[in-house]
Amino acid sequence: MSLARVTQFSISLDGYATGDVQSLEKPFGHAGMRLHTWMFSPQGVAGGRVQHGVDGALAAVGWDGSVGAEIMGRRKFGPQTGPWEDEEWRGWWGEDPPFHTPVFVLTHHPRPSLEMEGGTTFHFIDASPAEALEQARAAAGGLDVRIGGGPTTVREFLEADLVDVMHVVLVPIVLGRGVSLWEGLEGVESRFDIESVTSPSSGVTHLLFQRKGA
Amino acid sequence: MSLARVTQFSISLDGYATGDVQSLEKPFGHAGMRLHTWMFSPQGVAGGRVQHGVDGALAAVGWDGSVGAEIMGRRKFGPQTGPWEDEEWRGWWGEDPPFHTPVFVLTHHPRPSLEMEGGTTFHFIDASPAEALEQARAAAGGLDVRIGGGPTTVREFLEADLVDVMHVVLVPIVLGRGVSLWEGLEGVESRFDIESVTSPSSGVTHLLFQRKGA
Repeated sequence: MSLARVTQFSISLDGYATGDVQSLEKPFGHAGMRLHTWMFSPQGVAGGRVQHGVDGALAAVGWDGSVGAEIMGRRKFGPQTGPWEDEEWRGWWGEDPPFHTPVFVLTHHPRPSLEMEGGTTFHFIDASPAEALEQARAAAGGLDVRIGGGPTTVREFLEADLVDVMHVVLVPIVLGRGVSLWEGLEGVESRFDIESVTSPSSGVTHLLFQRKGA
Repeated sequence: MSLARVTQFSISLDGYATGDVQSLEKPFGHAGMRLHTWMFSPQGVAGGRVQHGVDGALAAVGWDGSVGAEIMGRRKFGPQTGPWEDEEWRGWWGEDPPFHTPVFVLTHHPRPSLEMEGGTTFHFIDASPAEALEQARAAAGGLDVRIGGGPTTVREFLEADLVDVMHVVLVPIVLGRGVSLWEGLEGVESRFDIESVTSPSSGVTHLLFQRKGA
């Protein structure tokens, strides 16, 4: 069965997954890299290699060939909003993005697909979460689909009850402002079994949500 | 040295320490007891006794005679706001409250002190956090002072940088609304060393904040 998965999704104690205000220079706004440094702890991914602790294992989940397509919001793809003024933008990740699969970018302003190096192709679609998941599943060749973020996109998929597995990383910082993962999701935990584990190396808490009965 | 401590302070994933809307029937609003059931897990406090797991140990912290006075907000004392219309109200806890120390209730509407059974006396004071802490310290006989809540009160003491030690319990539920602990506290973590531990018994994460250098 092809699961819809959220992996390595980092939030602050106050629930923000990205700061204010995103720009070309600051993809995560005032949060900077603070939500993501756990990944590069000594037991995470160091020197370009996955190390041998809890952080490393969980940083690698979903990057092992088990994901066959990705869905992301337009703000994860780039800092632009509204009609594309600059179709030269090819994502934050350079010519060989780390996805190596079809990537469906949700936007009200479709544009031609972008074929990158290494197997990544960005498709730009104006679709509901359910429609996007259907398209991504069709492209995933029986593998799982990653709901890659940002927070607004993950929230929309949770609202539509389309997430099977979710890995949230709780980073013990207070951002104060930004885009919240949890807004409008009162009671969402009731659909999941939740396991928690803290990392002595980075100090974060990994929350592993799995759909009940799945 | 007399420390200002926050103990067993439970919040949801979205940072709410109490729900909407507090009433006589619902002291925690729509949150009900969901933020507090961890305490009564098999390894917490069961059958009226502290059991032998992480939850039990942390549920007992500060209830061992090390706290000599408590400070709480008026909404922790009772559901009323504004001028006291009913001085018959003697708190949520019956005639023998669990504090067994002086308790300073912050209110803009002082009233005569209430001497309860078991050593608890409620004092009603109109004071800033710093002033309240000074009064509580004077009454604590060299012991620690508990900042007992609710969230608005804890937040005010954090804003004033008056908290030395804080035990926050992260309960994996999304309340959606209520009173937030973190609002306005951007960057507060920088003043603390933070240790995290999850409880396999209840599934909560205990976050232990200790003032750096303390």
